[in-house]
Amino acid sequence: MDDVLIRMLDKVELTNPVLVEGLPGVGNVGKLAADYLRDKLGAKPLATIHSKFFPPQVYVNEEGIIRLVSNDLSYWRAKPPATRDLLILGGDYQGITPEGQYELTERTLELCHRLGVRELYTLAGFAQGHVVEVPRVLGAATSTRGVEAMKKHGVVFSRNDPGGGLIGASGLFLGLGRTFGMEGVCLMGETSGYFVDPRSAEAVLQVIGKALNLDIDFSDLEAKAKEIDRIAQKIHETEQRLNEPTSQSREDLGYIG
Amino acid sequence: MDDVLIRMLDKVELTNPVLVEGLPGVGNVGKLAADYLRDKLGAKPLATIHSKFFPPQVYVNEEGIIRLVSNDLSYWRAKPPATRDLLILGGDYQGITPEGQYELTERTLELCHRLGVRELYTLAGFAQGHVVEVPRVLGAATSTRGVEAMKKHGVVFSRNDPGGGLIGASGLFLGLGRTFGMEGVCLMGETSGYFVDPRSAEAVLQVIGKALNLDIDFSDLEAKAKEIDRIAQKIHETEQRLNEPTSQSREDLGYIG
Amino acid sequence: MDDVLIRMLDKVELTNPVLVEGLPGVGNVGKLAADYLRDKLGAKPLATIHSKFFPPQVYVNEEGIIRLVSNDLSYWRAKPPATRDLLILGGDYQGITPEGQYELTERTLELCHRLGVRELYTLAGFAQGHVVEVPRVLGAATSTRGVEAMKKHGVVFSRNDPGGGLIGASGLFLGLGRTFGMEGVCLMGETSGYFVDPRSAEAVLQVIGKALNLDIDFSDLEAKAKEIDRIAQKIHETEQRLNEPTSQSREDLGYIG
Amino acid sequence: MDDVLIRMLDKVELTNPVLVEGLPGVGNVGKLAADYLRDKLGAKPLATIHSKFFPPQVYVNEEGIIRLVSNDLSYWRAKPPATRDLLILGGDYQGITPEGQYELTERTLELCHRLGVRELYTLAGFAQGHVVEVPRVLGAATSTRGVEAMKKHGVVFSRNDPGGGLIGASGLFLGLGRTFGMEGVCLMGETSGYFVDPRSAEAVLQVIGKALNLDIDFSDLEAKAKEIDRIAQKIHETEQRLNEPTSQSREDLGYIG
Repeated sequence: MDDVLIRMLDKVELTNPVLVEGLPGVGNVGKLAADYLRDKLGAKPLATIHSKFFPPQVYVNEEGIIRLVSNDLSYWRAKPPATRDLLILGGDYQGITPEGQYELTERTLELCHRLGVRELYTLAGFAQGHVVEVPRVLGAATSTRGVEAMKKHGVVFSRNDPGGGLIGASGLFLGLGRTFGMEGVCLMGETSGYFVDPRSAEAVLQVIGKALNLDIDFSDLEAKAKEIDRIAQKIHETEQRLNEPTSQSREDLGYIG
Repeated sequence: MDDVLIRMLDKVELTNPVLVEGLPGVGNVGKLAADYLRDKLGAKPLATIHSKFFPPQVYVNEEGIIRLVSNDLSYWRAKPPATRDLLILGGDYQGITPEGQYELTERTLELCHRLGVRELYTLAGFAQGHVVEVPRVLGAATSTRGVEAMKKHGVVFSRNDPGGGLIGASGLFLGLGRTFGMEGVCLMGETSGYFVDPRSAEAVLQVIGKALNLDIDFSDLEAKAKEIDRIAQKIHETEQRLNEPTSQSREDLGYIG
Repeated sequence: MDDVLIRMLDKVELTNPVLVEGLPGVGNVGKLAADYLRDKLGAKPLATIHSKFFPPQVYVNEEGIIRLVSNDLSYWRAKPPATRDLLILGGDYQGITPEGQYELTERTLELCHRLGVRELYTLAGFAQGHVVEVPRVLGAATSTRGVEAMKKHGVVFSRNDPGGGLIGASGLFLGLGRTFGMEGVCLMGETSGYFVDPRSAEAVLQVIGKALNLDIDFSDLEAKAKEIDRIAQKIHETEQRLNEPTSQSREDLGYIG
Repeated sequence: MDDVLIRMLDKVELTNPVLVEGLPGVGNVGKLAADYLRDKLGAKPLATIHSKFFPPQVYVNEEGIIRLVSNDLSYWRAKPPATRDLLILGGDYQGITPEGQYELTERTLELCHRLGVRELYTLAGFAQGHVVEVPRVLGAATSTRGVEAMKKHGVVFSRNDPGGGLIGASGLFLGLGRTFGMEGVCLMGETSGYFVDPRSAEAVLQVIGKALNLDIDFSDLEAKAKEIDRIAQKIHETEQRLNEPTSQSREDLGYIG
């Protein structure tokens, strides 16, 4: 079996398309953003990628129908105000070994290169380890031109973050992308790292929207963010109740004193 | 060495055969069912599969003769009331790495495809984490047609189970089977997950029997189920004795009081 | 790089040679036996086997000269009373992954097959988990003929041991050997599993000596066994001293009472 | 994707060049030494090595520009008093699996062999587990000639160290180098193993300087060593303060008494 199996679902000619990558990771920010972009733009399925570097797993939907885990490439033809065709890469998993990461990234980039991609955006979360009220978007790029362009859209290039570099698909797509002559930017939405974070995904998509002149309706993502807020709030309250003595118990303590 | 070594033991022409897969897994339900089916039907050895994705291990039988761990394909020519020839896949292990799972499944499917298989049943256990008196059979399928057909035989398609999808050979044979143009169904017998479970294996085989018009004598499997019941009962009693104070010890405590 | 690098050191024509394999494992019994046999017979180097399935390691000898870890094949031309030429396989490691075990065994068997080997003995230890005063030699074989032949030399074929089969090179050489048309026997010297065990290695070599009409001087191996006995005895005494109260401490306790 | 991707950055003809290897490891001694040598000599980039045996990681510099992790080969043309051209290998990682170590070492040696290398020095740290005031340089070599040559420069060849041999790139470059007909020496600077150790790197480079007639300015490395000393000293003082009772706390205890 080939290490990476690419099945084409459609045949398209795209004009100088941009690749937007968002796979599962910290706070699921990248995947949330890429999937949302695909759904809101109505991007169409182009290729399914299976691989022995994914877990040997199928998902079962509500009707009982199975689907083998995969990465998936969709395409979208530019509509004004946008001027650039898009390829959007999402999926269930990143490669589960370092070797798998390299192999999958290489093979996907090869396909994208053949489809005309010379520029790419990779989307990810950046774990801060504490709650982030208003997530900033941190950046890294393959060239100074990319850094300058992103700064104009409010992306933060910090001297210290990310300190140890980027590990995983978002960094690797940029790193290996250079061997294909591609230039790119990684956009990392700040997130606590404890929750799936739609708010951070929105912050990242806001930048993508500005950079690519996309008109994105964020209402569903904001609704999802509020739902996560409610869940987080409930967990927080439960924890506090368990830690604080209740008035009842304080009285009890009074008797002892 | 080839990653997967297939040694053909016989040469057969089968008519539109159905593959039934049952490898070791949760409660060993799939393997018990497939091995029992092979033995009761008197299916004949067709191919032995060795692989570097199995452990480097040989088994030694009671006469001191070794046998390298393997997967094994048997065949059975339809006899009335059955109308379909069968291929039955059993074995000592599933592939021990994700890569091995994919490679072994792919290579076995390739062989089965060449033998004419376009339809398959995969057998497995579904761990409930508690004792199951009357195991239901849960299902997943590659198509709505498969779902509807199985519902007629009492298979349950649950909205929530299996939540995280299926991991391992039974799911993968369906998932990769589609790339060979095969349609299939996974039958999962409910089981506690703590014991080897012949009763769950019987539940699964009852469905297979109805679906393929097979006349299976279940007496040996039921005897095995009763034996496991006795062992489980003994373990249960021993645990209770250790946890409950005996009348003797209660008296002792009385003296102290 | 080739997964397995075989470097031939000599060119020989052997007459129907027998392979004797002994690699590191339980009690190092197999390696001790094979290395001792090679040294006592004065077998000559034939091939060095390097592999990426060994650790990335070199050993440094007392003169400061390095040597890359390897398996090594030596040959010995039969001298009366022996009638069969020998190939002896020893080395620093077994393959460190299951895949590596298969690949190394396959490639080594391929070489041996080319050199004319159709029969092999694999040597190993069998861990009993307790001290064994007079180690028996347990056996497993590829055929009834092998079982019967070994029984004549006192080898024990037990219904229950080894229960879970044999894991590692000694079993795999027999299992994969069959795919090369080789017949063979595994000889397992009983050992505690806690110490390197020259006495168990001698027991195994006694069988080999009878089976192949070899005249082996066991004095050095017996000296080594006595040395290990002394070390084990010292450890035993130290443990006892630490567990038993000394007369001194008993007096001290007396004062307290 | 090829397991190891070598990208040539320059085209050079070197005269009988010597390879100096220093990758991350114990005390980072080898990497510190090789990087320092490259910087001080002003060696020029010759090749970048990417591989799926490295982590899937990019580093981000202070300007926000990413760089895929790599090993890197630089070259330097001999200037008097030196008479030998150099190739210097440094990098971010050693291969992260045993297989990766072998594959990367083999491919790098292949390239170096093509560039004319027949002799190599590998640089590493040797962990002593305690602070080393004046680090000695321990050695291992592929030949007696190498041992004798290094002894003249004060390198210590100890009967007992390194006891278990050398694990990792520095040993493997020598071990696999022999299959390319290369002779070589491993120089191991003693180090505690707890800190990055520029002093040990200097000790190693002093030997290289003598062996290859290199004029190396050590002032920057010595400054770095002093900085590490200061950090180590501070940690030591903090630990002592936490362990010793202060005069203040002794008084407090007095009040209690």
